Amino acid sequence: MQLTEIRVAGFGGQGVILAAIVIGKAASIYENGYATMTQNFGPEARGGACSAQLVLSGDPVLYPYVTNPDFLVVMSQEAYVKFAPEVRPNGTLIIEQDLVRIGNLPAGTKVYSCPATRIAEELGKRMVLNIVMVGFFAAVSRVLKPESVNQAVLESVPPAFKDLNAKAFEAGYKYGVENPDALPQHSSPEKEVTVEV
Amino acid sequence: MQLTEIRVAGFGGQGVILAAIVIGKAASIYENGYATMTQNFGPEARGGACSAQLVLSGDPVLYPYVTNPDFLVVMSQEAYVKFAPEVRPNGTLIIEQDLVRIGNLPAGTKVYSCPATRIAEELGKRMVLNIVMVGFFAAVSRVLKPESVNQAVLESVPPAFKDLNAKAFEAGYKYGVENPDALPQHSSPEKEVTVEV
Repeated sequence: MQLTEIRVAGFGGQGVILAAIVIGKAASIYENGYATMTQNFGPEARGGACSAQLVLSGDPVLYPYVTNPDFLVVMSQEAYVKFAPEVRPNGTLIIEQDLVRIGNLPAGTKVYSCPATRIAEELGKRMVLNIVMVGFFAAVSRVLKPESVNQAVLESVPPAFKDLNAKAFEAGYKYGVENPDALPQHSSPEKEVTVEV
Repeated sequence: MQLTEIRVAGFGGQGVILAAIVIGKAASIYENGYATMTQNFGPEARGGACSAQLVLSGDPVLYPYVTNPDFLVVMSQEAYVKFAPEVRPNGTLIIEQDLVRIGNLPAGTKVYSCPATRIAEELGKRMVLNIVMVGFFAAVSRVLKPESVNQAVLESVPPAFKDLNAKAFEAGYKYGVENPDALPQHSSPEKEVTVEV
């Protein structure tokens, strides 16, 4: 497993930490890699933004801080404004389509956009938008096997919510498979992505 | 705020991560300190043990790994066996009384013991044992103000569970205030602690 830095960010209550835990478990438990999740609480935690950092690696992770993520998965505008400038050149930005409006990205950034909130609402529970995003991430990032991520989802949620989260993962993954192209640079996601849920 | 290293450990599903998040938020959001939580997923994550590391500090945390915690809060025997040897000399061990049997501790370790599962069950939900332990930690560790930790609990749980978790925090805190003495060394907790819930 190649060293991969990921930041998942949004606002409190969206399930940012759980999304990061799922990705970390997929890498370590189901793909025999190593993963470290770090969460900073400090002045930045006093606003509404919530962020988790993940380092995935084939070897034990010696330095767990993420400075320039390869992937930024972002579910709020505030988190986007704060963390998008840190994405490494030619890195990948994965956004919740209706919650994030992009602009001023580092050169070469690939952008993938998913209407995760709407998909989650159609499944009956807005709260699973984080797992829809995880499914979408699995489809477009290709860092981990989708089966690994799916297993990690099932292992990380309470038994009563397994079915719902399995559907959320599947819906996000399916959306990613059916809409695999990154948005053209300097475009607004609303104009470029056909929403078909 | 003095630099303080804490490890919270147990098995998956006990709410180890949430307990750590609450302590981290209390330190940073409510006491103007800094906190970093780190979770390793790797070979160790493949067993049932679950552990979160916390560093609390008055300054930004540059090195987030915990090697010899000042405090180990532990909720399973497996996690106890694994992490107790790492407690720093004269450090503090905080255990779930019915889930952990102590032995072979580093010299000078202070041990505090709380029947958190039973207290949680009396509140009607075994799942809040983690927050009972957080309340107990707040009472016996004296690292943070109890009001800060209480606020962090309320901020970290879904609205529908605020009341239950507030009661869990209060019950754990009360138990710690009423049973403030560390167990004598080399003794079994069952013999030394009078359970009064």
